[in-house]
Amino acid sequence: VANRTQRRPQLAAADSRRLEAALAQTRSVTMRRMLQLLPDKEPRRYLYDLVPAYPSRSGKGLRPALCIATCRAFGGSLNDVLDTAVAIELFHNAFLIHDDVEDGSESRRGLPTLSAEHGLPIAVNVGDAMNVLSIRPLMQNLRRLGSRVTWAVFEEIEHMVRQSVEGQALELGWVRDNLCDEVDEAGYLRMTLKKTCFYTCIHPCRLGALVACGVGTDLDRFNRYGYYMGAAFQIQDDLLNLVGDMSRYGKEIGGDIAEGKRTLMLIHLLGACPRGTRARLREFLGTPRPLRTVADVRWVFEQMQRHGSIEHARSTARVLAGAALREFGVVYGGLPASPDRDFLRDVILYMIERDL
Amino acid sequence: VANRTQRRPQLAAADSRRLEAALAQTRSVTMRRMLQLLPDKEPRRYLYDLVPAYPSRSGKGLRPALCIATCRAFGGSLNDVLDTAVAIELFHNAFLIHDDVEDGSESRRGLPTLSAEHGLPIAVNVGDAMNVLSIRPLMQNLRRLGSRVTWAVFEEIEHMVRQSVEGQALELGWVRDNLCDEVDEAGYLRMTLKKTCFYTCIHPCRLGALVACGVGTDLDRFNRYGYYMGAAFQIQDDLLNLVGDMSRYGKEIGGDIAEGKRTLMLIHLLGACPRGTRARLREFLGTPRPLRTVADVRWVFEQMQRHGSIEHARSTARVLAGAALREFGVVYGGLPASPDRDFLRDVILYMIERDL
Repeated sequence: VANRTQRRPQLAAADSRRLEAALAQTRSVTMRRMLQLLPDKEPRRYLYDLVPAYPSRSGKGLRPALCIATCRAFGGSLNDVLDTAVAIELFHNAFLIHDDVEDGSESRRGLPTLSAEHGLPIAVNVGDAMNVLSIRPLMQNLRRLGSRVTWAVFEEIEHMVRQSVEGQALELGWVRDNLCDEVDEAGYLRMTLKKTCFYTCIHPCRLGALVACGVGTDLDRFNRYGYYMGAAFQIQDDLLNLVGDMSRYGKEIGGDIAEGKRTLMLIHLLGACPRGTRARLREFLGTPRPLRTVADVRWVFEQMQRHGSIEHARSTARVLAGAALREFGVVYGGLPASPDRDFLRDVILYMIERDL
Repeated sequence: VANRTQRRPQLAAADSRRLEAALAQTRSVTMRRMLQLLPDKEPRRYLYDLVPAYPSRSGKGLRPALCIATCRAFGGSLNDVLDTAVAIELFHNAFLIHDDVEDGSESRRGLPTLSAEHGLPIAVNVGDAMNVLSIRPLMQNLRRLGSRVTWAVFEEIEHMVRQSVEGQALELGWVRDNLCDEVDEAGYLRMTLKKTCFYTCIHPCRLGALVACGVGTDLDRFNRYGYYMGAAFQIQDDLLNLVGDMSRYGKEIGGDIAEGKRTLMLIHLLGACPRGTRARLREFLGTPRPLRTVADVRWVFEQMQRHGSIEHARSTARVLAGAALREFGVVYGGLPASPDRDFLRDVILYMIERDL
C-alpha cells in the first residue's frame, strides 16, 4: 500500500500545510462576519444561541474558501465576496442540521448532533432559521455590488438550493423504498452532482467569479471543475464514514451502512458480489433500521473489502480528482500565479487525502 | 348558550357565504399559479409530486386572500400581487410541514401528515424545497414591479419568516423545558404575534399595500389590525383543537394537550385552578409524551371546562376581534366601498366563527 501511495499524485507536506492554513484563515474571517450578522436578541436559548453551534465546530470551511479564492483569483476582493460566502456557509450548516435529522444521526464533527442535544423539534427549527438568516447577507450585497450582480447572486443561490433539495430527495427516496437494481453508478453520480457538487463546489466558484467579473461572465466554465472535485469529495466523505478515525472525522463510523445509504461502495458491492451474498445484502437493506445489528454492519463492510468495493471507490475518487486537475488548468490556468490559484489547485488533492 | 351567541357581533349568513366564496375564489387562483410555477421535472415521486399535497388539501387560503384583498382595496391589481401571494402560501405550507414534524402530528386537514405518509426524512426535505420554491415567484416580481418594490417585498418576506421561526422557537422551547410559571398571557400573546400574526395577517396586508402603493407608503398601519386578527385566529385554532369536529377541522382533537402546547387555555388553567389540580397538571406536563394517556388528556380538558379556561379563551378571542374591527375602521375605513373592503371586515369575525 505504501508503494502505491507513492505513485499517485499527492500533496507535498508543505503544500498541505499551506492549504490548511488558508482554510483556517478564510474560515475564521467567514465565522467572524457570520457572528456579526446574527441577530443579537431573543429568543437566544432556543434559537440564536444554537445557530453558531455547527459552524463553530471547526468545519473545514471549504465552500467559503472556494468562493473567496475564486473571487480573488479573478481580481475581486475579499470584502466584495464575503457576505456571499457567509450565505453559502449558513445554507450549508442548515442543510447539515436537517440532514442529521433526516438520517437520524447521533454525532457531527465529534459532538452530538443538534437534534441529539436539543431535541428534534428545536433542531428542525434552527435549520429553518439558518436558511432565512442566509438571505440577510445576500441583501447586504446590494449596496456594495449594485442591483444587477446582487440579483444574479440570488439566482445562483436559488439554483444551488433547489439542486440540493432535489439531490437529497433522491438519496432519501432510494433508502426509503430500498432501491437496489434501479440505482447504478451513473445514477449515483447524478444524485451526487445535485446533492453535493452544486453547493459544495460549482456554485461557490461561480459566485466568486460573478462577484469578481460581474454579470455576463461565463460561469458555466466552472461546472466541470466543480463537478469532478465535488464528486471526489463526496466519495471521500463516504469512505471516511467506513474507514475513518471517529476522533478525527466526527461521525459514527459505519453509520452510512446502518442507514442503508446508497454509496458508491454499496452500489459496487451489489453489482460485484456473488448471488448468495447479494441476497443476504438485500435482506439486510430490507430490514427496518432499528433491527439492523452491529454484526450486520460489520458483515457488509467485510464484503465491501472482499469484493474490492472500497478500492473501487478510492480509485474512482482518484480518477475524478485527476479530471478536476485537468479542468483546473482550463479554468484557472491562464490566470497569474497567486496563493489563491495555488489553493484552487491543491484543494483538489486535499479532497481525497483529507482524513476529516 | 344560544342566547349569548345572539348578543355578540356575528356574521350574517349571507355575509358568511359571500366570504367563503371570496376565499374559494382567491384560493383557486393562487393554487393554479402555484402549480404553474412548480418545476415540471424529476425527482417527482420523492419531491415535486409531494409539494402540492398540503396546498391542495383545501386549506382556507386566508393569507393569499388577505394579501390580494388589501392590494385591490388600495387600487392594485390581482396580477401584480399574485406571485407574492403564492410565495406566502408556499412559505405557509412549508411551515406546516415542519410544524407537523416538530409536533409529531398524525393528521392535517383530515389526512395523514406528510411525515406520517411519506416518512419524516422526506417530509423535512419537501418543507425545505417549498421554502426555496417560494423564492422563485418573488424573483418573478422584478419584471412587473421593478426593482425597488421587488426588493422591498423581499425585505418584508425576510422579516416575516424570521419572526415565524422566532415564535416557533419559543413555543417549542417552552414545551421542551416544561415552562409553567414562566409563561403568562402576555408572553403567550408575544409568542403568537411572532409565530402566527406576522405571516398570517400582518405581512400579507403590508405586502398587498406595498404592491398597490409602492415603496414609501406607511405599512406599519396594518400592524395592529393584523395582530388583533391573527391572535384571535390562533386562539380559535387552539379552541378547535379542543372542541372542534375532527371531520371538519382535520387534526387530532386534543392533540395540543397531548403535546403540552402552551395555549391560552392551558396558561389560564395553570393560574386559575386550585393547588392540588395544579400539582397534578404539572406532573402531567412533566411526563414524557409517549406516557401521557388519553385519560390524562381528557382530565386536563375537563379541568379547563371546570375552571372557565375555555370560556376565557373564547372571550379573549372576541375582545381581540372587536379590537381588529376598530382597527379595520382606521386602516380601511376611508377607502371606497368594495367587495375587497367588505372581505377585510368580515374576515375578522370569520376568524373566530369558523369551524375549520
